[in-house]
Amino acid sequence: MPASGITGSVLRRSLRAYQIYGANTGVGKTVMSTILCGALHHAFPQEPVWYLKPVSTGPLDDADDGHLARFSPSTKTKTLFQFGEPVSPHIAARGATPLSDSSIREKIQAHVTSCSQDGKGTLLVETAGGVHSPTPSGSSQADLYRPLRLPVLLVGDHRLGGISSSISAFESLHIRGYDLNSVLLFEDEQYQNHEYLRDYFGERGISVLSLPPPPPQESSKETDQARMADYYLEMSERKSVIDMATSLSTSHTSRLDRLDSMADKAHKHIWYPFTQHRGITPDKLMTVDSAHGDFFQTVSPPSSETVLQPTLDGSASWWTQGLGHGNPALSLAAANAAGRYGHVMFASAIHEPALALAELLLENLRNPRMQRVFYSDNGSTGVEVAVKMALTAASVRYGYEESQEVGVIGLKGSYHGDTIGAMDCSEPSTYNERVHWYRGRGHWFDFPQVKMKEGEWVVEPPEGGEGEFGPAMRFKSLDEVFDMEARDESLAAETYKKHILETLDRLVRVEGKTFGALVMEPIMLGAGGMLLVDPLFQRTLINTIRDSHSLFSASPAPTDPNNWTGLPILFDEVFTGITRLGPFSPSTLLGTQPDISVHAKLLTGGLVPLAATVASESIYDVFLGDEKRDALLHGHSYTAHAVGCAVAEASVKELLRIESGEEWEAFRAPWGKTKVDSASGGKDGVWSMWSPTFLDSVSRHTEVESVVALGSVLAIKLRDENPGYTSTAAIGLQSALSRVEGGFGIHSRVLGNVFYVMASQTTTVDVVRGIEERVIQAL
Amino acid sequence: MPASGITGSVLRRSLRAYQIYGANTGVGKTVMSTILCGALHHAFPQEPVWYLKPVSTGPLDDADDGHLARFSPSTKTKTLFQFGEPVSPHIAARGATPLSDSSIREKIQAHVTSCSQDGKGTLLVETAGGVHSPTPSGSSQADLYRPLRLPVLLVGDHRLGGISSSISAFESLHIRGYDLNSVLLFEDEQYQNHEYLRDYFGERGISVLSLPPPPPQESSKETDQARMADYYLEMSERKSVIDMATSLSTSHTSRLDRLDSMADKAHKHIWYPFTQHRGITPDKLMTVDSAHGDFFQTVSPPSSETVLQPTLDGSASWWTQGLGHGNPALSLAAANAAGRYGHVMFASAIHEPALALAELLLENLRNPRMQRVFYSDNGSTGVEVAVKMALTAASVRYGYEESQEVGVIGLKGSYHGDTIGAMDCSEPSTYNERVHWYRGRGHWFDFPQVKMKEGEWVVEPPEGGEGEFGPAMRFKSLDEVFDMEARDESLAAETYKKHILETLDRLVRVEGKTFGALVMEPIMLGAGGMLLVDPLFQRTLINTIRDSHSLFSASPAPTDPNNWTGLPILFDEVFTGITRLGPFSPSTLLGTQPDISVHAKLLTGGLVPLAATVASESIYDVFLGDEKRDALLHGHSYTAHAVGCAVAEASVKELLRIESGEEWEAFRAPWGKTKVDSASGGKDGVWSMWSPTFLDSVSRHTEVESVVALGSVLAIKLRDENPGYTSTAAIGLQSALSRVEGGFGIHSRVLGNVFYVMASQTTTVDVVRGIEERVIQAL
Repeated sequence: MPASGITGSVLRRSLRAYQIYGANTGVGKTVMSTILCGALHHAFPQEPVWYLKPVSTGPLDDADDGHLARFSPSTKTKTLFQFGEPVSPHIAARGATPLSDSSIREKIQAHVTSCSQDGKGTLLVETAGGVHSPTPSGSSQADLYRPLRLPVLLVGDHRLGGISSSISAFESLHIRGYDLNSVLLFEDEQYQNHEYLRDYFGERGISVLSLPPPPPQESSKETDQARMADYYLEMSERKSVIDMATSLSTSHTSRLDRLDSMADKAHKHIWYPFTQHRGITPDKLMTVDSAHGDFFQTVSPPSSETVLQPTLDGSASWWTQGLGHGNPALSLAAANAAGRYGHVMFASAIHEPALALAELLLENLRNPRMQRVFYSDNGSTGVEVAVKMALTAASVRYGYEESQEVGVIGLKGSYHGDTIGAMDCSEPSTYNERVHWYRGRGHWFDFPQVKMKEGEWVVEPPEGGEGEFGPAMRFKSLDEVFDMEARDESLAAETYKKHILETLDRLVRVEGKTFGALVMEPIMLGAGGMLLVDPLFQRTLINTIRDSHSLFSASPAPTDPNNWTGLPILFDEVFTGITRLGPFSPSTLLGTQPDISVHAKLLTGGLVPLAATVASESIYDVFLGDEKRDALLHGHSYTAHAVGCAVAEASVKELLRIESGEEWEAFRAPWGKTKVDSASGGKDGVWSMWSPTFLDSVSRHTEVESVVALGSVLAIKLRDENPGYTSTAAIGLQSALSRVEGGFGIHSRVLGNVFYVMASQTTTVDVVRGIEERVIQAL
Repeated sequence: MPASGITGSVLRRSLRAYQIYGANTGVGKTVMSTILCGALHHAFPQEPVWYLKPVSTGPLDDADDGHLARFSPSTKTKTLFQFGEPVSPHIAARGATPLSDSSIREKIQAHVTSCSQDGKGTLLVETAGGVHSPTPSGSSQADLYRPLRLPVLLVGDHRLGGISSSISAFESLHIRGYDLNSVLLFEDEQYQNHEYLRDYFGERGISVLSLPPPPPQESSKETDQARMADYYLEMSERKSVIDMATSLSTSHTSRLDRLDSMADKAHKHIWYPFTQHRGITPDKLMTVDSAHGDFFQTVSPPSSETVLQPTLDGSASWWTQGLGHGNPALSLAAANAAGRYGHVMFASAIHEPALALAELLLENLRNPRMQRVFYSDNGSTGVEVAVKMALTAASVRYGYEESQEVGVIGLKGSYHGDTIGAMDCSEPSTYNERVHWYRGRGHWFDFPQVKMKEGEWVVEPPEGGEGEFGPAMRFKSLDEVFDMEARDESLAAETYKKHILETLDRLVRVEGKTFGALVMEPIMLGAGGMLLVDPLFQRTLINTIRDSHSLFSASPAPTDPNNWTGLPILFDEVFTGITRLGPFSPSTLLGTQPDISVHAKLLTGGLVPLAATVASESIYDVFLGDEKRDALLHGHSYTAHAVGCAVAEASVKELLRIESGEEWEAFRAPWGKTKVDSASGGKDGVWSMWSPTFLDSVSRHTEVESVVALGSVLAIKLRDENPGYTSTAAIGLQSALSRVEGGFGIHSRVLGNVFYVMASQTTTVDVVRGIEERVIQAL
């Protein structure tokens, strides 16, 4: 059994399981189930038929499983939870022992497992009421059962108004990612809903089976039962019904065939990002049937009766995921914007989602410099926009000539995206050296790193860099590392400043180079290997550059505190921003803020691409001119697309709510933190979902060089004689964790000898602690 | 009155209009409307209250407007269409004169206009049945009324099952972009739906008003009516009801305030793409409240009682739009993928939407070379990926050294996107000359253009280019221009080939330059000014380069017909592909196919960003190697995001259906075309939604230099002594068309002295002909 709270799809190879949903209450779900069970016995006489009612309300003698047992006696029926009152389960369950959604899912999963031990057969799982009827816990039934993602048979509503309720019920299921297999409903000659719905669903590739309604209820119970038995007999033997029963088997087989063949087809036709295809065989591809919360549902080899297994999305889908896969609030936000706008050409136009998101970002970045939001499609384009802004601003102020190549100042190991302009912001490396048009333009500082080694937080200079950066330093806590006020006065700050000043002087005065921006990932360098930069070094670098106006110009420096000085400071917060490291903006941890910042990935909670480049008015003003060519002539067709902006608005609001609320208390507690206190100057922001005791334990392992964690990010650096991007040291750990244990596998990405796991911002304490356990075991 | 079929939002400054939807039939819409009308009279005693029932079914003496008239006699009631039978309107309307959706909308619009002439007041528009109940035409009510986008009051269902039907009804409205203002429902002490729904909607910022149900029906009609009158009196005076009535006014005012202030706020905080902000004042920004079909609903100045006006999306939202704004099929596709997957990290993973889209593209591009699909986020990134592919392929085959700068061959006036790598594919121009890291890398051929001038199709050499390209040529028809087989044998083909060969020889042999790709927008250069390239020139350029293996290498050329020769041919089909110019791929018109093609914009029907770079196996094979760094190390976080792929799959299927179906017959007919016959070698593809007679007429206008049209694109080149990107010649035409005439304004973008309008692929003949009329008038 999987660990608590982790339930996967219950797709099985032999057992065909379906969920019966109703367009409303009283539409005949149980009658249809009974007919279908009868037909299944006819169509597959050798196979068992099961009927499960997970939650039932109303008097026991009137229960649905009793009805089934009476009229389809060969069917094996079961009810998991029965409540006496004939009302919605959330009311009926009051006073009883609280029943969690996950416990219901787990019981269904156990039942499916037990049924599937008999080989082929069919299981119908009948819901209660309509699609959104409340569960005992008060959640929606459609959300409760979603992780199981059983294919759906929807019983439509044949009554007046039933066309509408049937279509709305379908839409509620559809936007939650359910597959609707067929619609069944009774025929009503006056309303003819079945005729309308046959066309409606037919156009959407969904079959409709309509049947005469059951005979009217008789006063005599015996006559009533006899008539019903006749009715069931007749219906179950109808060709259309038996065809439907047979088609369930056909569609099940088709689904399995498709799932089993997808890896082969992808292997032939997909060209994967960042992937060396040589050596990739279809079995190394992960086929994802669906995803929910923190888990992918991935396809197991055909030898396994369990087709799908829960696999933790351990890279948070390339660091984008924050609010869980299949989050209905984000689906609805996306669909609402799609329905209201589609996409609206954005040059000189404004719509609510774009404006609301811009206002939300400007307000919550709490950076008084920032006034302008420029939208683009992803982190890489957002960085290109930012660099164009900065370079022009610096070139105009310092009168750089067109023939001079303007570079950036950055950090070694930085990564800003894969378009050529973003690549050019990083120093030559494995990532870019083979790209013909790549040309690193700038200077990249090496820097001291923060690590936990053998239970102790240390700041280490780069190898051989003690001269420039001073010796390694030990700290009592991560808080102490991030205590910028205290450390500003330290010898380290002085050493850093001296090194930075000497370097700048050499580059500009001696080598005659020109620079247009400081470009950095604040706090942590992601693709470079999850390197936690000594925040004091970044802070000192920023402050030193800001104070270096005289290095670039003989005229006086601007005095407006919101104007940039020295060079525009550009933060690439694509990975580190929007609560990934805890605080909404990593600037909080540095106690200093950029002139331009780039936001993407978590910006949309992990659903669709969107980037925002935020800039100060002093940067913007540079592009005002009499001619169009003075403007920032950059734009993408889908700039500020309404779907992305609306999803981002919903995501940012939810992440802000989480950041300032109680959800993270259980994570913050072991770090000695409570809610973020904005008066703390950000120091409260230094904590992680990964516990200090776990880090301590990992850091003492012989194969571990060091470990870091901040916010939802955990990175373990393994010892390797040939570290770096081409190292294979982390592969063993990755492989051990990919195996299913405790009910789930872990999908992770490695960066050379660095193994990392990134939780989403909504991962539960149980799941995080479960991963910690598995990591400790695997080491 | 707007032209037929064009209806806009009916938002008015003084009149507050609301639409009453029901979660189901029989939930008490009319009773709630009556209560609300009473409360409105109490809250605003000086103001009129209107009640409108657009479509009513059932006996007249039982009609809803009669009920209103009896119990709220001060309310001005009206029914637009009454059908006698108490069934769904689509059945009731059978046999009657067909009633189109647009005629119902127009009547409502006329009623709103007449009501709003009295100044302040409230109008309630009550729907029939549930949200998706069929209209007389058989469409869904929620879709019929969507263009009006009245704020909604939803009457929830208080009965057993009513929680589910109320939430599903809300979701169906929400995904169509409606604003839900409030929920009203009766209280039922047993089911307590109102308690549950108060919390549910409260969390979503929607207020819930619950009221005691009306008294049970009495046998005596008189007693019954007396009791109902008492009930209405009591309810209408309730504080909660009067508060709700008042809140309608408050929320109306808030909405207007927000709409009126958005341009100011955007002016302060948004940095627009491709926009010189100097001179932009808030009144020049277009505030878009919503969009539907081909029309934005844009905000009029506060002096206008009509708040919103329909404005044609004349740039097809920067050439992306193909299936109409607010298309519910695309919203549902997006939401389904969001609900099923969220986003799934794509390296070495596969999911259904990504695979299905790849298969669909490979099948329908009908290019036997193509085997691989690489996904990225937009046309610009798609081009960067394509260029990385091509340059590496050429460099490996021809052994280019790392120190050699590898360029591209292209056409003058080309545009491939705004990231640095995509910019570098174009020659220096206004677009890029100020970008510091831009560096055009390649050679760009000038080329002859196809134009209609004074009623005649001509192919003109570039100015002063008669030596290289031959003299201007006249053609009887556009078909003749595109008759590649006949023209291959012409003198022009010989002249072109000679010029190309001489140029290549000079570049490679004399100047020693190295090239890695031919990069072109096939058929039409978009941002360069909608330039229709002589297809014979592009075809000859491709064939000549393919035959030039010996120019680049001494070893024998590859013999596999699917392998590239000479240079990889890269088509940037971002603008011209996926039916924009008629055929699914513009390659069809050239009769020759690329080795790499890039697809975006219309790929997703105009909803969300997504790009696909499609490549041949011979290109792909080059990146197979023993080391990771041999691979194509490019990737975006949201690579192959499920929402984009699912929307693209739905869009491509729909566009293919349109291309091969009858929808375009009325457009094709004046061009002498019927359905595309794939055996025609693509010649059937030469037609436009813009009629030949219109083009003829425009081309003869004194201010017009020439005109071109293909597929949904129309471009008019105006005479100007200083043509090009900085010309202002087209501004007058743009400005004249922006005014509201015939019920709508036209939003267009110009490219220097080129004015263009781009219809979407679903724009109706009426609308296109309406625009033609307005263009003729404006000229």
